[in-house]
Amino acid sequence: MDHKPIKQQGAYYLDDFIPGQKFISGEKRVTQEEVITFAKEFDPQSFHVDPEAAKKSVFGGIVASGWHTASMSMRLILDTCPIAEGRIGLGGDITWPAPTKPGDIIHVEVEVMEVRPSTSKPDRGIVTLRSTTKNHRGETVQILTARTLMMKRPEPI
Amino acid sequence: MDHKPIKQQGAYYLDDFIPGQKFISGEKRVTQEEVITFAKEFDPQSFHVDPEAAKKSVFGGIVASGWHTASMSMRLILDTCPIAEGRIGLGGDITWPAPTKPGDIIHVEVEVMEVRPSTSKPDRGIVTLRSTTKNHRGETVQILTARTLMMKRPEPI
Repeated sequence: MDHKPIKQQGAYYLDDFIPGQKFISGEKRVTQEEVITFAKEFDPQSFHVDPEAAKKSVFGGIVASGWHTASMSMRLILDTCPIAEGRIGLGGDITWPAPTKPGDIIHVEVEVMEVRPSTSKPDRGIVTLRSTTKNHRGETVQILTARTLMMKRPEPI
Repeated sequence: MDHKPIKQQGAYYLDDFIPGQKFISGEKRVTQEEVITFAKEFDPQSFHVDPEAAKKSVFGGIVASGWHTASMSMRLILDTCPIAEGRIGLGGDITWPAPTKPGDIIHVEVEVMEVRPSTSKPDRGIVTLRSTTKNHRGETVQILTARTLMMKRPEPI
């Protein structure tokens, strides 16, 4: 498996993506404080915000909201693979096979699934990326297959 | 369309959900400060964090990260429909047909699509909910069809 980014420098255009390419993000250590802060605002269920109550939950301890895992994964992907003029998420399929826990060190492995230039707008297209977020024990905590709108590299004038 | 929650008081169990039920969340006004704060941490693309640069983007102005819309929608749903012992997101399908913009007032309309008691674990099951987030102009900014694990109401002893 090729763990190198497709390009080392600068931001990517649609043209830089080829189905089958893979790259790997940097790592992020997830703290309990971050988990609780995020969840208090967006997902204040006891197993996300209350360490004592979480012990009695199905998780046996505090875990991150799935939306927090998704948001942290987004940042890891962006830092590794910035897209010129931005990547615009159109939608996708997301699963959380296991929870993210405080102390986990996560990273994202991204595979290019499909590259589809627009037939109506020649300056752009849709890239489908499968992003698998894993923790330091090798467990998969999220799989996101997302359709993202990207621009093509401008033609030289 | 029945805009009332299924129950007015207390938290819900799997048993409270019937396919076809609909309810509507409260509203949330989205501020530019919130949009930028979230995006600086999780999705620092220029059209999410830089009002000036965003004017030149395809959006013509600053817009919320899709993950921010997802997180705000989660909070709106939870506040309307808290689940006893928690709702555990297993995964789902998400689309963002339009962006959320600063100043938008959003709410979520939830429909129960499927209720499937577990065959192996009689105390729980999976409820599929379709949650449509709309802004005050009636535009749909997110559709999330999610599978959530919930507990059944405990049997009286």
